[in-house]
Amino acid sequence: MSENIYVGVDLGGTAIKVGICNDEGHLLHTYEGPTGTQDGVHTVIDNIEKYVRQIVADSPYEWDQLVGVGAGVAGFTNIREGIIILAPNIGFRDVPIRSILEDRLNKPVKIDNDANVAALGEAWSGAGRGIENCVCYTLGTGVGGGIIINGKIYQGFSGLAGELGHISVVPDLEAIQCGCGKMGCLETVSSATGIIRMANDAVARGDRTTLASVDKIAAKEVFDAAKAGDEVALRIVNRAAFYLGKSMAAVAAVLNPEVFIIGGGVSKAGEILFEEIRRVYAQLAPDPLQKDVKIIPALLGNDAGIVGAAGLLLRS
Amino acid sequence: MSENIYVGVDLGGTAIKVGICNDEGHLLHTYEGPTGTQDGVHTVIDNIEKYVRQIVADSPYEWDQLVGVGAGVAGFTNIREGIIILAPNIGFRDVPIRSILEDRLNKPVKIDNDANVAALGEAWSGAGRGIENCVCYTLGTGVGGGIIINGKIYQGFSGLAGELGHISVVPDLEAIQCGCGKMGCLETVSSATGIIRMANDAVARGDRTTLASVDKIAAKEVFDAAKAGDEVALRIVNRAAFYLGKSMAAVAAVLNPEVFIIGGGVSKAGEILFEEIRRVYAQLAPDPLQKDVKIIPALLGNDAGIVGAAGLLLRS
Repeated sequence: MSENIYVGVDLGGTAIKVGICNDEGHLLHTYEGPTGTQDGVHTVIDNIEKYVRQIVADSPYEWDQLVGVGAGVAGFTNIREGIIILAPNIGFRDVPIRSILEDRLNKPVKIDNDANVAALGEAWSGAGRGIENCVCYTLGTGVGGGIIINGKIYQGFSGLAGELGHISVVPDLEAIQCGCGKMGCLETVSSATGIIRMANDAVARGDRTTLASVDKIAAKEVFDAAKAGDEVALRIVNRAAFYLGKSMAAVAAVLNPEVFIIGGGVSKAGEILFEEIRRVYAQLAPDPLQKDVKIIPALLGNDAGIVGAAGLLLRS
Repeated sequence: MSENIYVGVDLGGTAIKVGICNDEGHLLHTYEGPTGTQDGVHTVIDNIEKYVRQIVADSPYEWDQLVGVGAGVAGFTNIREGIIILAPNIGFRDVPIRSILEDRLNKPVKIDNDANVAALGEAWSGAGRGIENCVCYTLGTGVGGGIIINGKIYQGFSGLAGELGHISVVPDLEAIQCGCGKMGCLETVSSATGIIRMANDAVARGDRTTLASVDKIAAKEVFDAAKAGDEVALRIVNRAAFYLGKSMAAVAAVLNPEVFIIGGGVSKAGEILFEEIRRVYAQLAPDPLQKDVKIIPALLGNDAGIVGAAGLLLRS
């Protein structure tokens, strides 16, 4: 096996997931071990090195075939300098992870934030395979995004391109404050957090809904209730979908992407969510911006982060 | 003079303007002649060829120094194929202008629409000189836009990137229908047409404004009245500025540009418009998207189209 390989690292608070990809972005092997966050920064870095060496050693590939290592991190990163500025879930602050890992592994290393890396994974080898220009939403605790232009992550002036969760979409009279300090951000309604908040509000004000009997509401319960015909739950789902579709119409007028890819936990709601997003997009986007444009679910699930991280070596 | 030169063509309904630029985008010579729209497509094409040959002949440069010719057109263009699909103001429909001019001039030819070309002109050698990533608004009869990424015009999937006038920004209850068929587009409030409409509406409903004594209101009269302290006019200007600032906050969350450049006739209103746009942007955009980001007027005025058209040879 003489092909090139790339290792992607998904650096999470509990587990570090690593994977080997080939030139085409096919995920060939994966490995997972504890992050060791509680034992401090040095242990976490030791573990990254260990797992990267381990997965290559356990594979049919030679170390020489490894072109480089990419890592995706939930947090603020300085991509050009390769520094994790702040990643609360692994306790990193101002860690020059790229140079540390390059010294230890003697291979090129690249880093990026988790939303960008997931977007690249989907664009390179998931739902966007073969597409040069796409926009990816990740609907989780927050709403993340990634912009892929000519097959690569687009960073913008200060690395903040693709902050799709902070497009202001909710009209003033209904807007609540976002964690970013501004009012009416997409994230306040279309993230899991936003959906759960709307559900809790509905229960608290006494709306007649099956959610009232749920102990601790998660987004999945809201979608399940909506699918079962609960009108209050359905209204919450439609609201989350409406603002997603509205934001996509705005993004389309700016970037005219071929494909919108939606991933993250909330996207698992499936067609009940996607149908409504597509309906709203068709209603709000000018006709020429609809022709042949697709709104589709992500394909790689939790592997998007590993694959995209590996892809940083080729596409950043 | 052994340097390379580039000729830009601004193909308007009344006049064809041509100009010679050097490698740095400096406009060295200009020439202008009638379009001849009334005499049909062949005459217009004859005129383009004539003016291009003329300006080079009248300049200190040799024909051999001419690298190529770029043309900007108000209308729908197929950029890849070099076809003007529909340009009502010059009576063109499905004219393969690129291949026709390449045959006649024996030089490479590129075309693009007027908003993209103006954006490129400003990015290359106007307000955005030295900036790799910027977003340009052109406020005229409509609201046009152009996205510059890594120094080049970004086209998107079907050539519709930068249709900033069709970002939906006006809340439902106040929205009116746009020419594109959708409701609440930026163009309905922040174009000269939108400003004139709001002024005519105010006069029609009897608002106390000095505009009531104006025979045929143009955008300039609204700005002049606002500067003179007319509250009705000021409210119209602030409304146009508000939705521009709101759209920029959305664009920033998508693309994180370093600079927003605003040109076109309406931008000549000056600080009364720009101050309000900046105030609204500061209010609506998350803080990290404001740091070092500038909102500035275009510099090239009517020459942006010629310069940007010349730039198509280097930057498209």
